[in-house]
Amino acid sequence: MQQGPAAMGDAARATASVGSVGSVDQALLILASASPRRSALLTQIGLPHRVVPATLEERRHAGEPVERCVLRLAEQKARQVQTTTGGALPVLGADTAVVLDDDMLGKPQDGAAARAMLARLSGRTHVVLSAVALAHGRELRTALSRSEVRMRTLTAAECDAYWDSGEPRDKAGAYAIQGRGAVFVAELRGSYSGVMGLPLFETANLLAQMGLTWCGWV
Amino acid sequence: MQQGPAAMGDAARATASVGSVGSVDQALLILASASPRRSALLTQIGLPHRVVPATLEERRHAGEPVERCVLRLAEQKARQVQTTTGGALPVLGADTAVVLDDDMLGKPQDGAAARAMLARLSGRTHVVLSAVALAHGRELRTALSRSEVRMRTLTAAECDAYWDSGEPRDKAGAYAIQGRGAVFVAELRGSYSGVMGLPLFETANLLAQMGLTWCGWV
Repeated sequence: MQQGPAAMGDAARATASVGSVGSVDQALLILASASPRRSALLTQIGLPHRVVPATLEERRHAGEPVERCVLRLAEQKARQVQTTTGGALPVLGADTAVVLDDDMLGKPQDGAAARAMLARLSGRTHVVLSAVALAHGRELRTALSRSEVRMRTLTAAECDAYWDSGEPRDKAGAYAIQGRGAVFVAELRGSYSGVMGLPLFETANLLAQMGLTWCGWV
Repeated sequence: MQQGPAAMGDAARATASVGSVGSVDQALLILASASPRRSALLTQIGLPHRVVPATLEERRHAGEPVERCVLRLAEQKARQVQTTTGGALPVLGADTAVVLDDDMLGKPQDGAAARAMLARLSGRTHVVLSAVALAHGRELRTALSRSEVRMRTLTAAECDAYWDSGEPRDKAGAYAIQGRGAVFVAELRGSYSGVMGLPLFETANLLAQMGLTWCGWV
């Protein structure tokens, strides 16, 4: 059973900065993630938010199903930041895992690890699970996005050169669908924003379920 | 038989500016499209290019299958710009259509047209066809990306407010998957970049088939 970081781009960082998008007064929620990609996705849908990263140790429990793991981590992040911020604003936690053969592929430690991950993904279809949890007062709701990504065959030279581009370094699974890695993806089934780290359809649904609206149109 | 503009974001514009991304000397190809989204997608995969929009009248012929129409328009754009630019660099043409019930949904003329399009797409799965054509010397190769987009049910109030946001105005089908419209998309099957207007996997394959490589890794 592999244990590793489950998040795409937001491993717990005690030093992560706390920022805001739009004025703090306007923020509708707090994003409990240090991932700039997740914040950019919320900005894409016009959602004013503050960023307060969680500081969990992100580990999969022995024998824990991957789906349960990402949902648990998203919940824990939301609850942790709800506690540290006082609970006035709803808190959105998220966790994303690249899954192949029941292994969760974390961020590569070095070039050798990245090449090994890319070699495993080459010519196969893997799964990306992306969980979101919204905590507001005592209420907590979660949603899970499941996507399949079919990758073309990659040569060893391509994997080397892709690593040298710098893109795989901080990416779970050692690739970025929103970057140069797009040319490796033969087909996506599911949620593009989920594969990037924050499923927007599911996130908007959670907000609507809690009666939170913005922009007048969702 | 509906006839209408097929392209997502690059209707023929005689006044469109000619630009370059990276130095002109470094450009590996010419993009025959005025769409800033297509140019941004080439930049995403690190491909230095110049922009020289085609100036075709983009019409579907009576009785022409949609697939043939988008491939023909992509070819014609590539060939036209190859002629006007002298042919020293390969030319990439592209055409994208949002298809429902064999109708090609163009850009909405006004708010009423946008609301009507969104009402048609609401709660259904539509198809986005995205064709690319690469012309180099006498050689011309084409590829077609086909995606399915499942949209959730939209209320009339949402369609009104979405129109008021300004996003649907210059988008075929009156929505942008890369914008606020992402919250309407329950599932994508196919190519995200194809739905945006330029399928990157297929484009990279065309370049490789013609022996054009860049960045050392594709």
